[in-house]
Amino acid sequence: MSENIEIRTIIGNRNINQVSDSPVTDPAAGAKETKTSALKKSSRYRSRSLSASSTDSYSSGSSSDDDDVSPREKVQKNTAGTSDFCVRNINQHAFGRREIEIAEQEMPGIIALRKRAADDKPLKNAKIVGCTHINAQTAVLIETLAALGASLRWAACNIYSTQNEVAAALAEAGYSVFAWRGETEEDFWWCIDKCVNAENWQPNMILDDGGDATHLMLKKYPAMFKMIKGIVEESVTGVHRLYQLSKGGKLTVPAMNVNDSVTKTKYDNLYSCRESIIDSLKRSTDVMFGGKQVVICGYGEVGKGCSQALKGFGCVVYVTEIDPICALQASMDGYRVVKLNEVIRNVDIVITATGNKNVVMREHMDKMKNGCIVCNMGHSNTEIDINSLRTPDLTWEKVRSQVDHVIWPDGKRIILLAEGRLVNLSCSSLPSFVVSITSATQALALIELFNAPPGRYKSDVYLLPKKMDEYVASLHLPTFDAHLTELTDEQAKYMGLNKAGPFKPNYYRY
Amino acid sequence: MSENIEIRTIIGNRNINQVSDSPVTDPAAGAKETKTSALKKSSRYRSRSLSASSTDSYSSGSSSDDDDVSPREKVQKNTAGTSDFCVRNINQHAFGRREIEIAEQEMPGIIALRKRAADDKPLKNAKIVGCTHINAQTAVLIETLAALGASLRWAACNIYSTQNEVAAALAEAGYSVFAWRGETEEDFWWCIDKCVNAENWQPNMILDDGGDATHLMLKKYPAMFKMIKGIVEESVTGVHRLYQLSKGGKLTVPAMNVNDSVTKTKYDNLYSCRESIIDSLKRSTDVMFGGKQVVICGYGEVGKGCSQALKGFGCVVYVTEIDPICALQASMDGYRVVKLNEVIRNVDIVITATGNKNVVMREHMDKMKNGCIVCNMGHSNTEIDINSLRTPDLTWEKVRSQVDHVIWPDGKRIILLAEGRLVNLSCSSLPSFVVSITSATQALALIELFNAPPGRYKSDVYLLPKKMDEYVASLHLPTFDAHLTELTDEQAKYMGLNKAGPFKPNYYRY
Amino acid sequence: MSENIEIRTIIGNRNINQVSDSPVTDPAAGAKETKTSALKKSSRYRSRSLSASSTDSYSSGSSSDDDDVSPREKVQKNTAGTSDFCVRNINQHAFGRREIEIAEQEMPGIIALRKRAADDKPLKNAKIVGCTHINAQTAVLIETLAALGASLRWAACNIYSTQNEVAAALAEAGYSVFAWRGETEEDFWWCIDKCVNAENWQPNMILDDGGDATHLMLKKYPAMFKMIKGIVEESVTGVHRLYQLSKGGKLTVPAMNVNDSVTKTKYDNLYSCRESIIDSLKRSTDVMFGGKQVVICGYGEVGKGCSQALKGFGCVVYVTEIDPICALQASMDGYRVVKLNEVIRNVDIVITATGNKNVVMREHMDKMKNGCIVCNMGHSNTEIDINSLRTPDLTWEKVRSQVDHVIWPDGKRIILLAEGRLVNLSCSSLPSFVVSITSATQALALIELFNAPPGRYKSDVYLLPKKMDEYVASLHLPTFDAHLTELTDEQAKYMGLNKAGPFKPNYYRY
Amino acid sequence: MSENIEIRTIIGNRNINQVSDSPVTDPAAGAKETKTSALKKSSRYRSRSLSASSTDSYSSGSSSDDDDVSPREKVQKNTAGTSDFCVRNINQHAFGRREIEIAEQEMPGIIALRKRAADDKPLKNAKIVGCTHINAQTAVLIETLAALGASLRWAACNIYSTQNEVAAALAEAGYSVFAWRGETEEDFWWCIDKCVNAENWQPNMILDDGGDATHLMLKKYPAMFKMIKGIVEESVTGVHRLYQLSKGGKLTVPAMNVNDSVTKTKYDNLYSCRESIIDSLKRSTDVMFGGKQVVICGYGEVGKGCSQALKGFGCVVYVTEIDPICALQASMDGYRVVKLNEVIRNVDIVITATGNKNVVMREHMDKMKNGCIVCNMGHSNTEIDINSLRTPDLTWEKVRSQVDHVIWPDGKRIILLAEGRLVNLSCSSLPSFVVSITSATQALALIELFNAPPGRYKSDVYLLPKKMDEYVASLHLPTFDAHLTELTDEQAKYMGLNKAGPFKPNYYRY
Repeated sequence: MSENIEIRTIIGNRNINQVSDSPVTDPAAGAKETKTSALKKSSRYRSRSLSASSTDSYSSGSSSDDDDVSPREKVQKNTAGTSDFCVRNINQHAFGRREIEIAEQEMPGIIALRKRAADDKPLKNAKIVGCTHINAQTAVLIETLAALGASLRWAACNIYSTQNEVAAALAEAGYSVFAWRGETEEDFWWCIDKCVNAENWQPNMILDDGGDATHLMLKKYPAMFKMIKGIVEESVTGVHRLYQLSKGGKLTVPAMNVNDSVTKTKYDNLYSCRESIIDSLKRSTDVMFGGKQVVICGYGEVGKGCSQALKGFGCVVYVTEIDPICALQASMDGYRVVKLNEVIRNVDIVITATGNKNVVMREHMDKMKNGCIVCNMGHSNTEIDINSLRTPDLTWEKVRSQVDHVIWPDGKRIILLAEGRLVNLSCSSLPSFVVSITSATQALALIELFNAPPGRYKSDVYLLPKKMDEYVASLHLPTFDAHLTELTDEQAKYMGLNKAGPFKPNYYRY
Repeated sequence: MSENIEIRTIIGNRNINQVSDSPVTDPAAGAKETKTSALKKSSRYRSRSLSASSTDSYSSGSSSDDDDVSPREKVQKNTAGTSDFCVRNINQHAFGRREIEIAEQEMPGIIALRKRAADDKPLKNAKIVGCTHINAQTAVLIETLAALGASLRWAACNIYSTQNEVAAALAEAGYSVFAWRGETEEDFWWCIDKCVNAENWQPNMILDDGGDATHLMLKKYPAMFKMIKGIVEESVTGVHRLYQLSKGGKLTVPAMNVNDSVTKTKYDNLYSCRESIIDSLKRSTDVMFGGKQVVICGYGEVGKGCSQALKGFGCVVYVTEIDPICALQASMDGYRVVKLNEVIRNVDIVITATGNKNVVMREHMDKMKNGCIVCNMGHSNTEIDINSLRTPDLTWEKVRSQVDHVIWPDGKRIILLAEGRLVNLSCSSLPSFVVSITSATQALALIELFNAPPGRYKSDVYLLPKKMDEYVASLHLPTFDAHLTELTDEQAKYMGLNKAGPFKPNYYRY
Repeated sequence: MSENIEIRTIIGNRNINQVSDSPVTDPAAGAKETKTSALKKSSRYRSRSLSASSTDSYSSGSSSDDDDVSPREKVQKNTAGTSDFCVRNINQHAFGRREIEIAEQEMPGIIALRKRAADDKPLKNAKIVGCTHINAQTAVLIETLAALGASLRWAACNIYSTQNEVAAALAEAGYSVFAWRGETEEDFWWCIDKCVNAENWQPNMILDDGGDATHLMLKKYPAMFKMIKGIVEESVTGVHRLYQLSKGGKLTVPAMNVNDSVTKTKYDNLYSCRESIIDSLKRSTDVMFGGKQVVICGYGEVGKGCSQALKGFGCVVYVTEIDPICALQASMDGYRVVKLNEVIRNVDIVITATGNKNVVMREHMDKMKNGCIVCNMGHSNTEIDINSLRTPDLTWEKVRSQVDHVIWPDGKRIILLAEGRLVNLSCSSLPSFVVSITSATQALALIELFNAPPGRYKSDVYLLPKKMDEYVASLHLPTFDAHLTELTDEQAKYMGLNKAGPFKPNYYRY
Repeated sequence: MSENIEIRTIIGNRNINQVSDSPVTDPAAGAKETKTSALKKSSRYRSRSLSASSTDSYSSGSSSDDDDVSPREKVQKNTAGTSDFCVRNINQHAFGRREIEIAEQEMPGIIALRKRAADDKPLKNAKIVGCTHINAQTAVLIETLAALGASLRWAACNIYSTQNEVAAALAEAGYSVFAWRGETEEDFWWCIDKCVNAENWQPNMILDDGGDATHLMLKKYPAMFKMIKGIVEESVTGVHRLYQLSKGGKLTVPAMNVNDSVTKTKYDNLYSCRESIIDSLKRSTDVMFGGKQVVICGYGEVGKGCSQALKGFGCVVYVTEIDPICALQASMDGYRVVKLNEVIRNVDIVITATGNKNVVMREHMDKMKNGCIVCNMGHSNTEIDINSLRTPDLTWEKVRSQVDHVIWPDGKRIILLAEGRLVNLSCSSLPSFVVSITSATQALALIELFNAPPGRYKSDVYLLPKKMDEYVASLHLPTFDAHLTELTDEQAKYMGLNKAGPFKPNYYRY
């Protein structure tokens, strides 16, 4: 779940702090997210163009349009004369188009899908309500869905993450986009409503990221909701809501959980995090890794990626774990498995990746040595007990964006990154390639649900079929000039496999 | 499945070659074994003491007892005067006992289990028919089961793998053991029969490795079979048979498939193979790895382990794959994914790890360069088409045990290891630690099935409960001086977990 | 040598382009620099605070003082009332002091030296003319030299690299500093002159970085030069000049080449570059490394570091080499050694690290695939033939600071970093730890030359004695909590070593 | 120096134990060998065919000829009717020839040299006295020297290391070989004497390995010695003796120390040891590496290789060092640098690689945990204080060849390998590729000394010229299909290099 969504109410009647403080109200925030990645969330609102180092490339343009007039009060038309959209400034479309073109070059999978299926138009007659982050990468997805035959209306799933220029480019290209950076709560729901409820528009598919479009339609337009053929959801939170609906008997349409597909999961966690932990630490602190002692709390996919990368740079890495199987893996991979207190006085860097809360507490931070870096790669800002640092005896000194020195009375400084929020979201960027994986997964899920013969899917929540998971992978192999071997007939028979896959049983662990 | 079991008939009426040639007759040989490890089988009949380098330590003793009199015709008594056993030579017990004592030092998990449960006697009243390899490591298992309260009768699951001295030590200690190296087919079934059918003996549990004890009892003593409380099976073949029985409605007791438990699988495949591929190649060829070009066919757990180890030694590693997800993993891990023909002329070493058949064919071997090493880490001798090398134009020259030079008319030599059988079984040894993992898994499965309240298990095949899988792991952590962290009450609640586990959902991929 | 110094004339009479184009005029630029590091130069003008990501922390302050009045025309006094300095704005001292304090925390070696030698005052009576970059890290060196007893006057060795706030802090602390960012050529020499020639000031030591102070004194104040006890020089260029002076019989004082000491060299090259190549590529392009194909031209220390880091992240790395020994090393380390043309069509990233010129030519770039990233980690902007890209058929598009897309007529884009200059200088930062190594080396060299008994050093260029090289290393071990073992008397005798070192012969390769 | 040579007297008048106990008598044994490799010595007497795993391939043949008649008393003729040789049994030549042919396939460099120089005959008129190990690999060297035009007479440098079949094959091919396995001290000198002093034979070159041929000729035939054009020596001991002769003014001919050439040193130490440490431990103990804690004493080239390999297999590696520079390297490479006592209670494996004595003492071994493996990769059996274990309270139990359990009164067992001698010599084998490097180096040194114009070399000890070192490397590149890049004229000029090399200054560290 994105940080921002966490502090937004869904239908406007929940208090911000309740959400993050009360897993009772929303247990998913904790339990579910253990099984997912830190990056999962990042797919929500961060993209290459939003990275720290690249903001200069467009922010001047952005800032100029931060005027006081709400987009809802403006009258704008694109070159074709259409006005069925609402963006910050339609005139920024050229810059946005260039960003989209650059993103296309880095998203081989989704572009390959666009080309391969262009003639089939597998989404012909699909009418999709989309609610995702809106940036150059998701624009590539949107235009791909259109190329595959779909009609679309699109809103943002986050009030801060929209790239205004990209929204303008989409509007200029004729898409009905309703989104801008800095929406109010009311704007947010207004935009989604514009996508759901329009003249001559009975949507039949939902592509959701967080569950807001689904909820709005279910609550406000229940009749319309019943006409939906399928929902595709990619966020932990949205998936959790779907399972709750399903349990409560309120899910009347098939839904697909693309969050837990194999390919997407590996990229969101292991492959992304092993690079982004290094990138985040370097960009924010310029630390030299060689010889540093690091403790990583949690040896799931995220912890595995972080450990591997840091060990590769000559760090001495310690791991903490609660699960004996993961602990045994850490041992076999060459890491000492310790309790945090055993090493906390000696380490130079502390990284949390557990999905749990209160993993690093004030008592630990009291023992850390001067200059120790503390950051979080886990699921939300709960892992490090930041509140415990907001006491009168400690001084906070912001030394850079996203970097605070917390100073003890004796002068000891702890270097805290991103105030305990996800450091890779805050201090690095998400490669377009990872977004390409997610987008291709979403597009295939839409195609599958839209074209499935009656009866294949009931009103329940499904994982992406393994064959499609494999197809997403195959779409990205040409990037690496990787050449698949094909089974011979004889081999396929021997193995009891179809030559086109799927190649593994569902429980295969990869 | 062990090589030997493959060429033995089960009830005596199947032709050897049919078995390996006809997956129709026994489809498990192929399809099922893909999902398992090469090492799986090794747990069957290989142990430290059987390794190439250690044969000198006892073989002289062994050979002296290879007399012509069948053990079945001998009258032997142990020191206590008992004769309810049948081994090669009871007088060899002292050497066997020492081997068992050494193995105990290297099997921390099973010994820890023995100590922890010694007072509880969780297997009190259990009457177990065992049919496994009989060597120092399995003796540790057998004596552990007895220490936990069980009565036992034990036969070998393989006609060649028994360590005679160890069998003698077990007999001397009072166990009813029926096994020797070099049994005939008839001996084999006679031994199992002696374990199943004895005076005053109604067994209630079966610990099987290959399914032979299960089958014999089911076919020959169906009434006795119905009294069984549970079956624990650790081999691919045995598990396959159980699933077939279950499908056919003939499985009337609960059975536990311990072959696919997480901990065991990781050790049998990834952890063992990354070490044994190096060990096998070194012991058989003394090859220097640095700078060598290697192609590994298959990027499952075995292939991943092999690739990692060889890359670590400075090899240039190529991978072939049929599964796009595994291919993408290989790419992200830094390996070029190729078709075999693209690199076959250049590589110095070819390793198969697919579980499939006819992966390396004569046409490939015709293209290999002089001195190319060819070996198999996959499931059986089907991966390399050895028969295609038995043609008049090629000369075979045995240069060492398990090493053949196959010589082309132009003088080119291919170095073929173990005639295409599993090279790590033939040319290296299996660490006792890996056997400790398997043994602890087996013991816990027996405890669970024997003590489960009525109704928990039906007449079906089950995986080991995750909590027990985690327990096996935890038993082995002290070896690494690894210290687990415990969840606080607050954390457990936040995560929705029990503090004692299980800690992950069943679909978690590790 | 820094880029800027290269394009500045020394005494004002050489044309910019001649310098970089004519190794005849300055052959050192090429030949000598092969043996050194890319980073060497970086120690000249880049520090943590100058990194891309940290510019925000002080640049606003900096920009405010970029007024039009030359510091030379201002009258400034520090709090103590002194005015023997010339900086941009004395009032900025507080910010500069804080930067110095932060740097102190990250420079354990030089601070340890300061503490250990504080009582001895080994530089008592030393009168040092310093000419280096002026930033937080060098300020720590300057204040250390003072703490060891030296008197100092200091100028900048580069017209762009001075951190004005740090210069202000030094001036406020009473140091005679003459430096500001954006000096003119004339200012540059004026500042050095102010350090050399002052009332009541006969310097007896020079700490130089580029050779400018040495040259000015030699040319303009030859009598003063003869009174010098020693010169310490840390740059490739400066060292080259010293060797030329020595050959020409004009070097009348002992000089120490600290550029080639073991510890410094390892940090400047291998340790720094393996981190900075990753950092530079991430910050400038957000590229995902996993699965990318990379060619690295040159397998010296810089190439070795780059290869190791990229392989660690899952890149497929190719190496080009001219030297068979280095090529053999690359092979044994697991890299394919190729000619550039063999792989140029396939690679995603091209990195030069040869120290040579025209390594990547237009003909290569014509063959690169779309999106290929091209950058230089070698000695200067000669490795990539940038001029060949400045043709009418190609379009340059600056997409970020330091990132250009060069666009071919068919739309193909090459991503060129830092216009071929050293990418780690331009796109990442240098850890303070590396500067600490260099600073401690410089300080020890000054101590050695100043205190050496007559006759130990003649008027020649020396390497740092190995024992001092070892001492620099030992000063930095506590950072890693590393504990040295001491030789017993018996062991020292057996080895024929002094217990205090040196421990290796001079030709030892480490 | 080989273990055996150490315990042999040179001229027959020194006591065995004195030699290894008194570095005063032979200081080289200690001090000098630090700078060399463990493997260095191995090139003396171990080869693929002598490996543990391969002894079966020929030992039966060997044993059959171990009759009681001394070869010196036999009359033997080869097929051509010649009898100017003395070997165990000329009839074994066929087996020996096959061993040589196999070795040729694995020694690409020396074979390439043979082919390239076959026409030039650069050793025409060279008359070489050779004294080296005699095995398949050295036979390839001998026959190469002959192919290059040399006349030769050859003896063994070690009384145990001769492969009798290979010696027979050489004799059959017409070489004057005097060597057999199991020579007496007197035989040893008789054989060398036969090579030095023969009818119509005035040798002009010596290829020595240990300095015995050199010494015999110098002492016994001083006039003949003065006619020698050059000596090539590859052992630490031999080189030490040469330096002593040189210091004493007794060296009247040029000598070349090939022991310290770059290529050879890297192969003998780093590249060989990173593989052989793994191989040795596996073959002798079947230990599983994953998760094991290991301490490596010494972080020179041997220690670096061991650390890298063990870390790669998932070991937690600690390092001890006396030299701060090497300690800093270990830290930057990700190892904790500790004193032995800090970790001795926790580690599973202890490896010495210091070149020093008494590194692991009884007090350390008293603290080790049960099952700890102790072995030596350093220069000789001095590193582990084995004598301290030969006390009445400890029991030794040999569990395999080269593996002893040393048992404490409380039952604790230490697993001691090779009784503290070089474990890679005792428990693994040396790849032919490494011997190929050494052989090519020796051959080139002979060519250089034999053909050098008068005055190039004086009566002193020289290192191999870098250009030849580079040539040795280049001879081995085709094995890896490595393609060198050539400098353009412009680049060579820019760098100030000759296009044919040498490419680096002498002090370059690689």
